[in-house]
Amino acid sequence: MDEFQWIAAYFGPIASGQGALSLGDDVAVLRPAAPGARGIATVDAMVEGVHFFADDPIETVARKLVRVNVSDILAKGALPKEALLTLGWPAARPEIELKSFAEALGDEFTAWNIDLIGGDTVRAPDGLFLSLTLTGESLGPRPVLRSSAEPGELIWVTGEIGWGAVGLAAAQAENKGAALAVERFRIPRIPPLSAANLIADHASASMDVSDGLLADLLKLCAASDVGAKVEGIMVPLATPVSSAAEALPQLTGGDDYQILFTARPDVSDMIRQNAAKGGFKVSEIGKVSSNPGLQLFWDRDPVSLPKSLGFSHEWS
Amino acid sequence: MDEFQWIAAYFGPIASGQGALSLGDDVAVLRPAAPGARGIATVDAMVEGVHFFADDPIETVARKLVRVNVSDILAKGALPKEALLTLGWPAARPEIELKSFAEALGDEFTAWNIDLIGGDTVRAPDGLFLSLTLTGESLGPRPVLRSSAEPGELIWVTGEIGWGAVGLAAAQAENKGAALAVERFRIPRIPPLSAANLIADHASASMDVSDGLLADLLKLCAASDVGAKVEGIMVPLATPVSSAAEALPQLTGGDDYQILFTARPDVSDMIRQNAAKGGFKVSEIGKVSSNPGLQLFWDRDPVSLPKSLGFSHEWS
Repeated sequence: MDEFQWIAAYFGPIASGQGALSLGDDVAVLRPAAPGARGIATVDAMVEGVHFFADDPIETVARKLVRVNVSDILAKGALPKEALLTLGWPAARPEIELKSFAEALGDEFTAWNIDLIGGDTVRAPDGLFLSLTLTGESLGPRPVLRSSAEPGELIWVTGEIGWGAVGLAAAQAENKGAALAVERFRIPRIPPLSAANLIADHASASMDVSDGLLADLLKLCAASDVGAKVEGIMVPLATPVSSAAEALPQLTGGDDYQILFTARPDVSDMIRQNAAKGGFKVSEIGKVSSNPGLQLFWDRDPVSLPKSLGFSHEWS
Repeated sequence: MDEFQWIAAYFGPIASGQGALSLGDDVAVLRPAAPGARGIATVDAMVEGVHFFADDPIETVARKLVRVNVSDILAKGALPKEALLTLGWPAARPEIELKSFAEALGDEFTAWNIDLIGGDTVRAPDGLFLSLTLTGESLGPRPVLRSSAEPGELIWVTGEIGWGAVGLAAAQAENKGAALAVERFRIPRIPPLSAANLIADHASASMDVSDGLLADLLKLCAASDVGAKVEGIMVPLATPVSSAAEALPQLTGGDDYQILFTARPDVSDMIRQNAAKGGFKVSEIGKVSSNPGLQLFWDRDPVSLPKSLGFSHEWS
């Protein structure tokens, strides 16, 4: 098959929705947002050797690409909607990998209720690179931002923190005993679609955790012009620890793609009920304060913060 | 400056619009389409060594990136609206280049009335790569597609065809005497925004010319289930020729980013008037026929078509 046939064969079947003109036309048509909702968009790129290893199974690369974008949308109290894919495919990667890639991508799009409406596939001279633009629609009248946390509110996180850091370390050490962690680094667990409802209904401010819990919390605080006090032992970690020093790699490691949010104390019960109903974990980990900056505690003892609170392979 | 500061310094000033949350948040907010219009989106990627040369001036790379996307939107009878940029920047490129890149990008966005609302900037291990998602809004109730040409209609093209081919050849030959052609290969001339009105008002089918005039016309015909007869001497070429054989490289060369469209014969005068008013060239180059396939003539003599009607560095 030549390259045009590859596209038709592998991406044709997973393209969907009324908008998917662009596989046979120049543009895709966007579905308008429902009355009272707002359309939003995000884009995240992944690069071989930077965001994933060259020998990672190709289907894990597809799954991660979708999930790192979906977590951005869910964190805004919004549901994902339409995707446009840019794929830079190296000649050296065999056709069977493109097939696996497209199939895994299609599975993820189905799971997250996303229509693939367009894209551009180009030749990559060196490593594989990918960029996914994802549209979404707010469940409330507007997306929940980072900038609207207030002093006195509680700080929450979904799921577990640290799988990215633990998995990356295990992958780098080629630790065969840590297959689960490697798997969760390659294919991040993100909250289900129902988490968007919880955020839309109860969160005052929200973001996804991608560069490390503490670094991202500091960004949320800066955007909201507030500070935060975090109790480390309340953070649900991927790997159990017995001290703050042991916890810090997981608290600052990045690649978690869970949702970090703030909420008024009087909605705590509803938050716990919504999460239980949705089948995902939420944990209260601290409190918003009026003094800027971050204070970390470990069983109520203050902990000196490391110089770097997070890790980023991104520039933004 | 560290990388985060680069972004703030160079992309902050060119980000615009209410949607531009994402430079400080996880998502951008999309402006809803006007009543009676449809929102559309396209994405085009460019890769160093594939779509441009490593030593092309960086500002030309920025300008081309915007224009190859804008031409897709205009060709649908729509106006460009919002952009999301993925930038894979190699460590080896100096900061001053990023500054020039962002400034040129900002100039183009201003010229085409586009708001930069979000993006992702990542480390590229090897060459520079870029992907731009561009939204648009149809001027009519829906975008003008490739698939709606009818037999008996006339075939038109905007601007001049062949600058991409002539400029690429000149650049490859390092022909200093052909500076204009090289410039037009690097920064394609595309029709002005007013061309969208002409397309929305008068075109029955339309697409942008990116992979070679003849190859793209054949795609339009296939999508419309029609054929085409083209008179080669009526195609306005970048470089004058005296035979069909001489014309073919320009007719099949790609990288023109003009608009190829069809229209009923009775609107020809209005098409010419609209183009004259908008300050751009339109040329009638042939006729839609009911027999599938493409017939090329040179001063009414049939011309044998080459095996390849176009050139594509894309897969789609």
